[in-house]
Amino acid sequence: MKIKYTLLKEEKNTKARYGKLETNHGTFETPMFMPVGTLANVKTLTPEELKEINSAVILANTYHLWLRPSADTIKKAGGLHKFMNYDGPILTDSGGFQVFSLAKAKDISEQGVKFKSHINGEPLFLTPELSIEIQNKLDSDIAMSFDECPAASASYEYMKQSVERTIRWAKRGKDVHNNSNQSLFGIVQGGAYQDLRKFSALETVKLDFDGYSVGGVANDGESKEDMYKAIIYSTEYLPKDKPRYLMGVGDPIDIIEGVIRGIDMFDCVLPTRLARHGHAYTRYGNINIKNAKYKEDFTKLEEDCDCYTCKNYTKAYIRHLVVCNESLGGRLLSIHNIRFLIKLTEELREAIKNDTLLEYKEEFINKYKK
Amino acid sequence: MKIKYTLLKEEKNTKARYGKLETNHGTFETPMFMPVGTLANVKTLTPEELKEINSAVILANTYHLWLRPSADTIKKAGGLHKFMNYDGPILTDSGGFQVFSLAKAKDISEQGVKFKSHINGEPLFLTPELSIEIQNKLDSDIAMSFDECPAASASYEYMKQSVERTIRWAKRGKDVHNNSNQSLFGIVQGGAYQDLRKFSALETVKLDFDGYSVGGVANDGESKEDMYKAIIYSTEYLPKDKPRYLMGVGDPIDIIEGVIRGIDMFDCVLPTRLARHGHAYTRYGNINIKNAKYKEDFTKLEEDCDCYTCKNYTKAYIRHLVVCNESLGGRLLSIHNIRFLIKLTEELREAIKNDTLLEYKEEFINKYKK
Repeated sequence: MKIKYTLLKEEKNTKARYGKLETNHGTFETPMFMPVGTLANVKTLTPEELKEINSAVILANTYHLWLRPSADTIKKAGGLHKFMNYDGPILTDSGGFQVFSLAKAKDISEQGVKFKSHINGEPLFLTPELSIEIQNKLDSDIAMSFDECPAASASYEYMKQSVERTIRWAKRGKDVHNNSNQSLFGIVQGGAYQDLRKFSALETVKLDFDGYSVGGVANDGESKEDMYKAIIYSTEYLPKDKPRYLMGVGDPIDIIEGVIRGIDMFDCVLPTRLARHGHAYTRYGNINIKNAKYKEDFTKLEEDCDCYTCKNYTKAYIRHLVVCNESLGGRLLSIHNIRFLIKLTEELREAIKNDTLLEYKEEFINKYKK
Repeated sequence: MKIKYTLLKEEKNTKARYGKLETNHGTFETPMFMPVGTLANVKTLTPEELKEINSAVILANTYHLWLRPSADTIKKAGGLHKFMNYDGPILTDSGGFQVFSLAKAKDISEQGVKFKSHINGEPLFLTPELSIEIQNKLDSDIAMSFDECPAASASYEYMKQSVERTIRWAKRGKDVHNNSNQSLFGIVQGGAYQDLRKFSALETVKLDFDGYSVGGVANDGESKEDMYKAIIYSTEYLPKDKPRYLMGVGDPIDIIEGVIRGIDMFDCVLPTRLARHGHAYTRYGNINIKNAKYKEDFTKLEEDCDCYTCKNYTKAYIRHLVVCNESLGGRLLSIHNIRFLIKLTEELREAIKNDTLLEYKEEFINKYKK
């Protein structure tokens, strides 16, 4: 079965949508935040811990799993769900983003992308067809089309050619997609150029995907203003009966701004990456737990947070673990940070239902930027 | 309240004892294995995970906690239990072992030991009185006397002087011990010398501690035969109504041999250290999960193991995590390895109750060394 999105309510004063997403691994409400499980695990955490913080879809990385342990090994395990023992929905990216960022691909042709493995320098060649073939084997619930993700600084001319190629790649991927239990999303690119976003959205929608991603935002050097514009330039042309996924965005304020512009799904490595570096989200802005002022601070990260970490541990203890490089510290912060973003989306859904999203945003930002 | 040990049964054919240990944080059966929580956490694990594998007492390191976050910080937190949110019993060592191994103390006098911090080289001075004072502040259930732990290769003359000094240190520590909720153990030293072990045991028992440790075994260069002899040379002179703790031993066969010689409590960093290096205990010997043969081995570490890891994950998945340096891998192996040793002690208790310990040992070793 493919996923099924149902739009349940549009907020009065914004483009925000409250909806539900039915998958082969459960039904969940949107807007939602999806934690990233790069290598078939959300770093330091178990599936049970993700469920306890009401996590729904998680994201896994096609590029990383292709290299280790390989798509064939995961297929032999019975697919990604069985391999990692996660019975909730899984979304896989196309590998494109990692190829362009991590592996620093230089050789892009119509056929695909030549690059070198970030692990051992081995030459590799990823095509739209191969990306889909790998994702078919991983057997995720939602697969992504293989796209080029140009730098925010790319010229109009380059961006135009890239957008056109990404549409051709999307069609090639869709043509070979062969997994009736897996949905496939198209990706809207076009940088900050309004006409390219429109072109990309309209042409991608013509190919009739199960959902649509907005890509190429939150890139190096892009301003927040450009990012928010790029979202609205894209969502404007997307069908209302399909889910919209803003790729790679996990800053709390960006999530709110994305929801206001009609986004349903978000993912980001930030909550777990920040955690490993000792940072915690709080309603009053992010804190660095390594700061000396927390050494004997026996209060919780957030007194009213309902996560396991805040129910059980003090800042002083978490600081001690982080300062001593004990990985339990990063684990406790990961639980809190992911819960923080998931709680945020729960509150956003309530605000959409009550048509109070703009008030919610103002209140949130006033505290968070204090 | 001090701990209370009750000897429930002696095995017919060996010196093994089945007993119970009442503490301010619950009552538990012996023989028991105690996981090590060096820096106020059993690496990668939460208190709930320790309870799930029937862990009872855990051990924390006085030396490490003295340096970070400091005894005063933990006292301000309300003691070690509150600081780390663990409501089971905690045993603290004296810091002696770390001072002699990790910090490589060179300057031992009657007064105490001068050495340098392994973190920043700062000069430090630890005395029997200070060790007890720190442990009083940590507020563990069981504290250890400060002892010298000479190398197995030490001469008879050196070992004799050291044993005599350790007894004087034990008395000095006991004199300043000031925590009515904390029990204090004396430590028997003497290397592989029968008369020194006897002297050390008898003189330490004269000081009337709440329990007795056998120290200075499992040191570099000591043979298994010498180690087993040192245990029996010590336990022979220890009172039957007090618990006996063999420090730093976690090899499964050594635990069995220790139990046969009358030991009630064991601790070791091995299960978690092996886990971090990708090793797992199994009934058929230890395995290195990084071995290529496990890449597509979709069976459990041990099919009949009742731990969370074996109930949920395959060797192929754990191998993938360990190979990719994902700390969840070490976490899953830690759960299994600790459970393995705790299960071993559960089976040893049954064998003592049934007077079948020697048969159990033979069967275990036949499989394990296969």
